[in-house]
Parts: sequence; C-alpha cells; structure tokens
Amino acid sequence: MSHPGTPEIGIGMVGYAFMGAAHSQGWRGARGFLAPPLRPRLAALAGRDRRAATEVAERFDWAEVETDWRALIAREDVGLIDICTPGDTHAEIAIAALEAGKHVLCEKPLANSVAEARAMAEAAAAARARGVRAMAGFTYRRVPALALARQLVAEGRLGTLRHVRARYLQDWLTDPGAPLTWRLRRERAGSGALGDIGAHIVDLTQYLTGEHVAGVAAVTETFVRERPLPDGGTGEVTVDDATAFLGRLAGGALATFEATRFAAGRKNALRIELNGSDGSLAFDFEEMNVLHFYDATAHPSTRGFTRIQVTEPEHPYLGAWWPPGHGLGYEHAFAHQAADLLTAIATGRDPEPSFADGLRVQQVLAAVEESAARGSAWTEVAPAPLARPRTPEAAR
Amino acid sequence: MSHPGTPEIGIGMVGYAFMGAAHSQGWRGARGFLAPPLRPRLAALAGRDRRAATEVAERFDWAEVETDWRALIAREDVGLIDICTPGDTHAEIAIAALEAGKHVLCEKPLANSVAEARAMAEAAAAARARGVRAMAGFTYRRVPALALARQLVAEGRLGTLRHVRARYLQDWLTDPGAPLTWRLRRERAGSGALGDIGAHIVDLTQYLTGEHVAGVAAVTETFVRERPLPDGGTGEVTVDDATAFLGRLAGGALATFEATRFAAGRKNALRIELNGSDGSLAFDFEEMNVLHFYDATAHPSTRGFTRIQVTEPEHPYLGAWWPPGHGLGYEHAFAHQAADLLTAIATGRDPEPSFADGLRVQQVLAAVEESAARGSAWTEVAPAPLARPRTPEAAR
Amino acid sequence: MSHPGTPEIGIGMVGYAFMGAAHSQGWRGARGFLAPPLRPRLAALAGRDRRAATEVAERFDWAEVETDWRALIAREDVGLIDICTPGDTHAEIAIAALEAGKHVLCEKPLANSVAEARAMAEAAAAARARGVRAMAGFTYRRVPALALARQLVAEGRLGTLRHVRARYLQDWLTDPGAPLTWRLRRERAGSGALGDIGAHIVDLTQYLTGEHVAGVAAVTETFVRERPLPDGGTGEVTVDDATAFLGRLAGGALATFEATRFAAGRKNALRIELNGSDGSLAFDFEEMNVLHFYDATAHPSTRGFTRIQVTEPEHPYLGAWWPPGHGLGYEHAFAHQAADLLTAIATGRDPEPSFADGLRVQQVLAAVEESAARGSAWTEVAPAPLARPRTPEAAR
Amino acid sequence: MSHPGTPEIGIGMVGYAFMGAAHSQGWRGARGFLAPPLRPRLAALAGRDRRAATEVAERFDWAEVETDWRALIAREDVGLIDICTPGDTHAEIAIAALEAGKHVLCEKPLANSVAEARAMAEAAAAARARGVRAMAGFTYRRVPALALARQLVAEGRLGTLRHVRARYLQDWLTDPGAPLTWRLRRERAGSGALGDIGAHIVDLTQYLTGEHVAGVAAVTETFVRERPLPDGGTGEVTVDDATAFLGRLAGGALATFEATRFAAGRKNALRIELNGSDGSLAFDFEEMNVLHFYDATAHPSTRGFTRIQVTEPEHPYLGAWWPPGHGLGYEHAFAHQAADLLTAIATGRDPEPSFADGLRVQQVLAAVEESAARGSAWTEVAPAPLARPRTPEAAR
Repeated sequence: MSHPGTPEIGIGMVGYAFMGAAHSQGWRGARGFLAPPLRPRLAALAGRDRRAATEVAERFDWAEVETDWRALIAREDVGLIDICTPGDTHAEIAIAALEAGKHVLCEKPLANSVAEARAMAEAAAAARARGVRAMAGFTYRRVPALALARQLVAEGRLGTLRHVRARYLQDWLTDPGAPLTWRLRRERAGSGALGDIGAHIVDLTQYLTGEHVAGVAAVTETFVRERPLPDGGTGEVTVDDATAFLGRLAGGALATFEATRFAAGRKNALRIELNGSDGSLAFDFEEMNVLHFYDATAHPSTRGFTRIQVTEPEHPYLGAWWPPGHGLGYEHAFAHQAADLLTAIATGRDPEPSFADGLRVQQVLAAVEESAARGSAWTEVAPAPLARPRTPEAAR
Repeated sequence: MSHPGTPEIGIGMVGYAFMGAAHSQGWRGARGFLAPPLRPRLAALAGRDRRAATEVAERFDWAEVETDWRALIAREDVGLIDICTPGDTHAEIAIAALEAGKHVLCEKPLANSVAEARAMAEAAAAARARGVRAMAGFTYRRVPALALARQLVAEGRLGTLRHVRARYLQDWLTDPGAPLTWRLRRERAGSGALGDIGAHIVDLTQYLTGEHVAGVAAVTETFVRERPLPDGGTGEVTVDDATAFLGRLAGGALATFEATRFAAGRKNALRIELNGSDGSLAFDFEEMNVLHFYDATAHPSTRGFTRIQVTEPEHPYLGAWWPPGHGLGYEHAFAHQAADLLTAIATGRDPEPSFADGLRVQQVLAAVEESAARGSAWTEVAPAPLARPRTPEAAR
Repeated sequence: MSHPGTPEIGIGMVGYAFMGAAHSQGWRGARGFLAPPLRPRLAALAGRDRRAATEVAERFDWAEVETDWRALIAREDVGLIDICTPGDTHAEIAIAALEAGKHVLCEKPLANSVAEARAMAEAAAAARARGVRAMAGFTYRRVPALALARQLVAEGRLGTLRHVRARYLQDWLTDPGAPLTWRLRRERAGSGALGDIGAHIVDLTQYLTGEHVAGVAAVTETFVRERPLPDGGTGEVTVDDATAFLGRLAGGALATFEATRFAAGRKNALRIELNGSDGSLAFDFEEMNVLHFYDATAHPSTRGFTRIQVTEPEHPYLGAWWPPGHGLGYEHAFAHQAADLLTAIATGRDPEPSFADGLRVQQVLAAVEESAARGSAWTEVAPAPLARPRTPEAAR
Repeated sequence: MSHPGTPEIGIGMVGYAFMGAAHSQGWRGARGFLAPPLRPRLAALAGRDRRAATEVAERFDWAEVETDWRALIAREDVGLIDICTPGDTHAEIAIAALEAGKHVLCEKPLANSVAEARAMAEAAAAARARGVRAMAGFTYRRVPALALARQLVAEGRLGTLRHVRARYLQDWLTDPGAPLTWRLRRERAGSGALGDIGAHIVDLTQYLTGEHVAGVAAVTETFVRERPLPDGGTGEVTVDDATAFLGRLAGGALATFEATRFAAGRKNALRIELNGSDGSLAFDFEEMNVLHFYDATAHPSTRGFTRIQVTEPEHPYLGAWWPPGHGLGYEHAFAHQAADLLTAIATGRDPEPSFADGLRVQQVLAAVEESAARGSAWTEVAPAPLARPRTPEAAR
C-alpha cells in the first residue's frame, strides 16, 4: 500500500500503438496494485497525429497530448520519458531525454545497430553520474514465472549449468499473402524475427543464467521473399523470417536459439529450458503463470518436473495481485516493470536491464548476422566494456 | 474505439476489498480497451472506513469517497451502483438502488437465501419496466474461453448433451490452523464452499448448456469443525468445507458437481466438462486462456481434443486486447462484464446474467442443502416463474 | 533373473477373446521379464470353438487346446486356472477349480451378483486352508503408477485423506447406432458401465486408500434405450449407460464416482485423484506411465504437482523392464499381475486382491443400484464379514 | 489373423542384452498380434557366454543357443539374422549373413563409420538382386504416432515444410560420478550422444519429411572429460556428451537438432516438431501414444493443436492391439518392425529403412563431426549415390 503523501513523478510517453497501450496499462497497474515509493502520474502522451493520440489519451487517462516528442521532453511536469516508438527512433529520443535530465524507459530492441546502442549506453552511463536512470524494456524479465526462475538459478538450485534451449515461435507470416509492413524492411526494423523476438530470448538467457553469450554459429532464412504491398503490387522482404543459432555461454554451457514467424500454431511460444547438474527449469509463455522445475536432488521415486503455479503470495510480484490460482495476463509484466523502475529511481539504484544490457544483446544479434553471412562460422561476441558486474537480483 | 463524444455514466462502488480492486480494474479496463457505447466514469467509492476507502480510491482513480452507501445512491453524478460487499448486504443495497433508478451490478452470490434473491429479482423486474437494468456478477461467464464454449454449444457443436462434470477445487482450508473468518460462519456467508464457489459452477452449467438444473442429490461435509479465532481461542465452523452433488438438467443430461476448499494443490481449479453426442468441451480456470474441444464428427485418424488458445481476434472479447498468444488474466473478465453491462444499458437491452438467473442459482443451492439434510434424497429444484426464456447469447 | 532350475506351473486359460490375449501376453511377459520364483508354462487353452481356440493357441504358444473347461481343470499338467470368460460363468468355473485344488486367477467383476461373489469368496477361504490361492483380476492395481500411488499413501505422504475423485470415462456408446451386444443386456453382463468399469474405480479407491466405501448415493442412466441388433431390428438396452455416485469412505473422506460410456473423446480415461491434508495424487490411465504428486509440505515457492514419469528402476515393477523414459503399455499390468500371483503361490502368501476384496466391490455396486432405485437415498454398504484386515502392501 | 498353414521363417539373433530383450519381445509380439504372412520361429540365439545366453533363451522361448555368430549364420533352420550387438561388429556380421543368403535386420546405428556403412549398403544392394532383404533398425519409425505423422506429411497436410525441430534429450550422464563404460569410448561406440541418439532424430527427420539433410553446422561438447572406471581409477571420455547442429533439408526447410545425455529430468525425450504452411506436427516419446496436429486450414475460432491419442483402429498398427485409449509401450515398435520386415520378405518388396537409408544417416553424422571440427563451418552432406527414390510409404 502506498502511504499517503507518496511523492509523484510525471510520465511522458512517446508512441501510442500496441506498446503504448501495454505501457499505459502498466503505469496504471503499478499505481493501483504495486504501490511503488514514487507514484506515477500519466502527465502527457506524444504522437504526431493529435486526433489519434487524444483518443488514446482519453481511454487511458493521460492528462495531456503533445505532437512533438521534443515538447514532451521539455515539459516541466514530466520526469520520465517512456519510449514506445519503432527502433530506428530510440537513440535520438533516449539520448535527448537523458541529456535533459529525464529518466528513460526504452522499449526493446534498444536500437537497430550496435553503434546506436553503444551511444545510448554511453549516454546512460553519463546520465547515471547525475542520478538520472535508464532502463531497457525487456519486459519478459518481469513475468513472475521468469523472475522466479532467476531466483532459483541465483540460489544455485540448478548446479552447474549445461544447456540452454531458447526459442521464440510465432506464426503470423505463415500465410504468404500476409502484407509487407515496415517490420519486414531492414531500414526500419533493423532485422526480422532476430531483432523482434530473438532479442528477447538472448536477453532472457543472459538474465536467467547471469552469463553472457560468448560466441555463436547461425543461419538465417527468408522463406517468402516477395509479399503484397498494402496499396497493390508486391515488394521485397529484406529481413529474416527465421533465424536459428548455436551458442556458448561464458561459463561453458551449450545453448540453442531459434526465432521464427513461421511456426504454424505457435502464437507466442517464448520457450526456454535450462538444464544443470542439479536440476532443470522450463517455461513457455503460452502458459505464462507456470514454471516447471526439476530437482535432480529429490528422491528418485518422486522426482519429476513440478508444475509450479506462480500465483502464490511467496512468488515475485504476486503479493500485490489476486489469490492463488488467479492468473495474470500479458500486460501485468508492464506494471511490474514500471514499478521496479520507479522503485529504482526512488531509492537511487540502477534499474535492470540497463542500456549496457541492451547493448550486450545487440552485440549478440550482430554476431549472429555476421556468422550467418560467413557460412555459419563460429563468431565470438565482442567484449562489452560498458557492462558492469552483474549481481544476482532478487525480484520482489 | 470509442468515438469522441461518447456519453458517460458515473459509477458508484460499494465495498473496496478483493472484489473492489477487481471491479475497479474492470471499469478502467473496459474504458481503456473495450470502448463501450457508454463510457464509465469512476465517480465515487463507498466504504465505512474513510481512510481505507480513500487509499483505494487514490490507487484506482475514484474521484470521491462516501462512507454511507445510501449517500452513494443519492448522488446525482452516479448512474450505476456496483455492489462488492458480502452477501448478507446485497438485497438491501440492490433494492434501494433499483428503486432509486440506478442500474445495478451485484456480486455473486446474489443473496444468502432464496427469499432475498426472490425479492431482488422482483425488484429488478419492476425496475426493468422503468428502463433500469440489473446484472448479477457471475463474472466467469466473461472469461473468453467460456464465452467461446457457450457459442459452440449454442451452435449445436456438441449435439445432444449427455454429461456435465463441474467442479471448483481450492485448498486454502487444508491447514486446520487456518483461522475462523466470517466466510466460515453461516450468519454472514450463508454457506461455505457451496455458495462461494459452488454457485459459480451451477451458474456456468446453466449458462453453457442453456438448461436448468432440475434436481439434485447431495452430501456436504465440514472436515474441521473448530478453528482458531483471530483473537485467541477457537470457534465453530458453521458452514460446509465441501459439497458434492449429482444433478440432472432439464434436457436429461447427467451432471456431477463438487465444490471444496480441501483439495490440496488445486488453487482455483474451476473445471467444467461437457459431453454430447457430437463433441465435448473441457475447461480449467487454472489454464484460463485455453478451451479444449473434441469434435466427434472429425475424421477418426486425426480426432482428439484440440487445445484452443482463446487469444485470437475471432474469439469473444479478444479483438480489444493483445496479439495472439498473449494471455489475459483474472481481472480481464471484470472488464468484459463491465463493458457488456454498459452496452446493455446503452442499447436498452437486458444484461445477462439477470437477477432471475441469480435466483435460479440460489434455488439450486437451496435444493442441495435440502437434499443433504434428507440423506441425499433426490430433490427437485422448485420452478422459477420469474425466469424468462433464455436466448443463446453470442459474446462479442 | 530366474535361476536355472526354477520350478514351473502349468497354466490353463478359459476364454480367448480380448482378455485372453491380454492374459496370454501377461504370462509370457511375466516369464520373460519378471522372473517369478514359479515359472509359468502355457499348458492349455479352453474354448468351445476348437478352430478359433487353436488359432489363438498358435499365436501365443499355448501347448494344447481343450473345448470344455471341465477338461481343462481335470488336466494334471495344469496347476492354475485363469478365467477370462464373461461374468455370468465365473462362479461355476472358479468354484470347481478351487475345489479341484487348482489356484485361480479370475477376471473382474468377480461375479454378476453379491450372492455369487459371496459363494466364490467362501470357496476361496476354504481352498486357502488347503494352500490353494485365488486372486481377482483387478489388473489396474498393477499399473506401476498406481502401485506407486499406493506406496505413497501407505507411507502417509497424503496425511489425513479428505477427498477421492474417481471416474472412468469411455465413449464407445456415444453413437446411437452402435449395436446391441451382450454387454448391454443385464442377464449376461449384470450391469453396464457400473460393473464393467465402475467396478475398477471402486476397487482402486479401496486399494489406494486402504479404506472401504461405507455408503453411497447414486443415479444411473440409460440414454439410448433401443439399439440395432446385429441381425436386423432393434432390441432393448437393459443396463446402465452411465452411473454416478457420491460416497463416503470408512475414514470419513468424501468420494465422487462416475462411470460412463458416453464421454465423447475420452477413450479409456480411468482417472483418480486423492486429496489429503499433506498432499494429493492424480492419475489418468490415458497417460498411464505418469503419476502426479503434490507435496503440501514442500516450500511454497516451488510447490506444485510433480509429474513423475513412473519408469525409473526405483519404481514398482520397473526394474524388470526398460531404461527410464521408455513407457510401458496396457498389457504390462497383466504381466505384473501374473508374476505377483506366482510369487504368492511360491511363497505361500495370499495374493491381493482376494476374492473377499472382489466381494466387497460387488457389495458397493449392489448398494449403488439400490440407492439409484430409491431416489438416490443414502445407502450403507453391508458389512463384509469375510474381509480380512488389510495391510498396506508395497508393490515389489 | 494368420491363416492356418502360414509359412514360417527361423530367426537367429546375435546379442542378448537390452536390445536382445526388446527384439525377442518384438518377434513374439509380431507372431501373437500382427499375424504377418511369414510367421517367425525363434530358432536360435547366439552369445559368447553360453550360460547367460541360455538364461535369456529360456525366458523368451528361443529354441537353441549358439556361442558363435558364424555358427548361427550357418544353420539351415535360420533364414533371418537379427543383429543386436554393438556398432563395431555390425558390418562383419551383416555382410557375412547377406552373402550367406540370410535376410538381415541390423540395429542402428548401421555402423561406426561411413566406410563400413557404405560396404554394408553395397552388400545389401547385391543381396537384393538375389531376393535377400536387409533392414536397418531405426525402430522409432514404427511407433504408431510417428507412422501416423509420416502419413499426414505424405498426404500433404502440412503444406510447404518450413521448420523441423528435433531433439533427443536424456540425463543419465548428468551425474559426474557415472562410470566410464564402452559407450563413452570412441573406439567402441563411434561417437557419443551423436551416434546413439542423434542418429534417431536424423533418420526420423528424413523419414517424416521424405527429404535428405543437405548440410549442417555443428558444435559438440564433452562436459565431463574424466570418469571413474569400474575397477577404480579414472579414464578419459572420448566421445561427445552433447551435440547440437543446424541443418537444411533438400527442400529448403530449416532444421535444428540436439542430442544430449545431460538434460536433467528428460529421460527419453525424443521430440520432433514440423511446421509447414498448412499445419504442424509435434511428438514427444515420453508421451509415445500421442501425436499433436495443428491444422492451419481449420476455422480460426476452433483451431489449435489436437492431441490425437494414437490408439484407434484406424491408426497404423493399432487394429492388432487393444481397444482405444489402451496405450502401447516401448517394445511394441519392435513387434511392428518385425512384422513389417516379415511382410516385405513374404511379398518380395524392399523393407524400409534400407541399409542405404542407414548410410545416409551415417553421412549426416560424419558431416556433423566435420563441421564441429571446423569451427561450425557449414558442411554439405555428401551425395549418396546408393539411395534410391523414396516413395511415401503408408504404414499399415
């Protein structure tokens, strides 16, 4: 429960589409349920189309609307900029906001290139020295089952890690008649399945294990190279439909990754399994309130994967919500993300994932593309001098 | 999307605990995502403890606070009363609100007795003649997977119905040291597992099949008869810990029901299965975004239960939310319920479930208690003259 | 491994249809894998149709064929009579065999009436005094996952038992055009779903819990009362299509039972769940190599149903078969049953389930029919003076 | 049903350990249930240790015992040699048997090297011209669910194939104290997880899709390099603990493969998923009687993965066994394999998988090892001139 007199911070959000709705609901949910020590006020939303932005603002209780993100940053009643626009705009907005002394939450992928991501990470490091915080929006870290998974790994319950098996399977491009949108063009989206969903499983692997991906061998594929344009005719798909890669973690574990938009019947199957000498964990976002845990040290007669319903008050974030067995949905992770960022700001700590974490993901994606271009040759991931020592973080 | 200029209605909510939070989030969710033709405004919240009520109001954007529900009903800016208090207060508040010309949403169970429920249903019938609407809060009807189940039954996909298998399993009383709260006392709660969770599976059975429960044979049980009082000492449990009953639907199908708070490991396992001559449906709330459908008319080689992820835009309510595979949570059903009620009010139609539906559930519960008291003897459920013809309703 | 010089016993089997094939494979499997201290020799098979019986004998290595079960009993090279015929013939054959000093394995249900079952149990008691053994063929007890379940209950892992939830769901009568066979006629089959499959869940409940069913309240139903005869025309179905009943165990637990042939999509869904104060168990024969165990005493963060693959060498019977993860099939339980009976004979112990256990099941079935005939009135199960004290038996 | 007068063929089996038991049960099961047009007679078993071989022969009804496989081949009453010994002996025995005019069933992997496998394939081609048949023992093809999967692919139900996701996960080396057996030494086993279990998923991929693996990029890993020797001290592990590789099928689909003995909690998780433009299939051997099928052409409202219980009479091999819902076990596939080989011999057709199929698998394994040795560089799989055109085969 927030105490009366909890200080407030004005939120300014850029972008109002899919991610804008998720973030709006996240800020409201944080305020209603998670009671962070800094209470979010939905101050203003920025969008170039005033009418559309106004409509969204009314639905989600944003107090005002701006049509220029620079004006949003300039507002005195805004202390935090929440960036929900496509990846090619992230660097400019985030750096400007940080330089203006505003805290920043930036949707993933951090940027469309390593160079941009590096510039952002440097801006975040500089801002941090002035007490200004930056967080990358790898929201799946805040799914309670995955936060619990991180806890169990950090507690050593898996022993020595041997395998990671990560995939993110969707099927919305299975139909060759699906149209050519900006997400299928390299100049806007950076890459295809790799950057959009592959980025999530790379970040999750590094988050859950506490280890970096040290090297990769990859193949990418574009199954359907021409697609219909919305206004007739066809255009070229210039990003990957699917990417698969092998990897090794810094600690020696063997990892396999796959991201695709062509897995018929798999809608949002973000799946990750970890195998260690003492146990295993398995998760599938299509059953997001569940974590499967195998304790290899248990008695052989009653050993097996335990299906943990991650809805108990003892579980990360769950004390704030409903009774056991009453599941959470997709957008709840955005409320957790919002609350964690506000708590970090209020308590003067660095939020995670940092922009340096986002850069590290970007470096893995770049190595994947390089390996694929070089006949799958093993490619080391360049060191990331910005990365700071990672300490196991216990989700609340 | 709401059009600009959508009319508004002021909501006044009584009660602010578990159900109050769920309803608050429901009203906000309806406004943000479901765009009903009547936009809810969170006008005022009523609670006897002003400080606690104010705290909740701030978290969920309720504009004002009242400490007397009569004052809430008297407000001119309130057009709809949302009753979230324990069952023994429902009748008085609901009848007063309806007589004052306010639309009413009343949490289940409708009341603690058939007599109260009948009075409420009569008040609702009278109010309806004046264009005032009343809805009973059997919210599970608005879980998309169950709304889809209703559609499939109404389309005749199951053929002639043979079996219903309904159970609602929880485990929060398994520990004999769990304290004696008001929920375990007959004078406040009416009954135990029967009225609290058994009511849901009775309503769902009648909703999904479109048929009434015509008779029952029952047993009830209180496993732990003394429990610790919060202030020391022990007190008597005067309600059922578990109730199981056999039933027959008006159309001849055989039904089995079980409600318990002693099923270790089952947290909120509202499970219902229907078997017909042409197919079957199975649902478990612990996997709330999934419906299992068996089509007996399919080819024998590829026949089986299909695990439908009810997250597609073609599914009830889902067009308003996230992309496929991004699940909803418990409170989303409250947003659907709120939006459906607002739509009914705006379009001059009767919302479902009606108070008469709530009365019909109460009559089944009464028959269950009577049968249990008479050595499980078969007990017909009294006819419900208030019930109007049920028309299959396609959830949006 | 059998030691060289293991003594042999000649088996004589009566009946050669579905159950005959299962039992034949059971005897061969026992000999090949389970190495009982008494090695079965497939001496002779009895069937009225010599040609058909000979064909089956050749397929399964039965040495000789008889056309009269009396001749089979009279053979000196036969020490054990295995009865696989319909229920109306069990009593006569079993009693004759026992009186002739042959050990007996008799398929379930033990008989078609309590009177017959009682006569058989008395014959078994008399034979036992002469060292002759009798076993009832409730084969599901020998499914490893259920034998493990019994072990866990006997070890006290569930604490005080609160609930049993037992059902046996099939769907082969869903089609109203399915023909009228002897199984649908009371004079041959005794009853329908109740005796055929309901008997299994009654026996399993008593086996797993170690407690008798003390009373019941029941309904039975025949959904389709006329069915086509094989030779044209239609005939009347004189048994139940489905039966559901409530029950109480001697120790106070509440039990629900359902047996049906009208559950579309459920092929052989023998499901049983037990809930106790310290844990729960759940099983479904459609996933026969798995047992789900909930340990309520585990840490709240990692508590959940554990999916035990019952294929480890530590599990009952599994040491004799394949490596972990290599599942067993339906007929393996017949091999276990055969081996357990042979071991009991060789070691001079009473096999379980005894004929007295079979009688006890028959008494529950009779109480179910009586309750259904009396408007579901609660009906006590008559005491069974023959039943001897049950000691928890650890499956080998 | 076999007709009376069905001709017989004498089987001679070499080896009697794990695989020997499985094959013995396979021959008996084929004879008892599948009624092939050539009836197998268990003529003789060959093993160097006469006493052990005799013990196994008695358990499984083998008529005689030999201590030299050459003597077995020389027997006139043996028409088919069944090779169940380790891989380094396969080539010599199989070639000798074929040259002696005996049909051959040879366990997988066909051999420990491409050169041996090629010599065997050439011997098989030569023998075939004389009417002598050879089959490689990739038994998983005869699991009914996988045979059904092949049927569905061959019928075009998946449309254009996009992805294969194949893995075989075990955990028996997770414990670093597990001993150093011959399976962990390259000179005996050829390779580790790759040849032992990776071979199965390569064969299954080629079988199910009807396409060859055209190229690969791989990594291999030995996590624990020293293990205790049975007689004290430690020895070096000279094979892979785990191997993962990316691949492309001849038709352009992207495939991922992983074989490991370090996946804690996965006992025999042979998993394969295929995604095509019109549908998907998923299988896990730990639930061997089930196939999951997604029909992308079905109505969006009721679309999802259908859990097919592959136990219906319409399913491959199932007509010979039990009623629906009564699952099969691991060794049933050996009965199917035996029956299919006998049918091919009796009807003068080539059995599948051929030795050429086995060679093709060996070539993929060799390319995997080559890629791993060259820094994961993409490695084409050499063409296999022996391979004959593959025609979709409908399992019976």
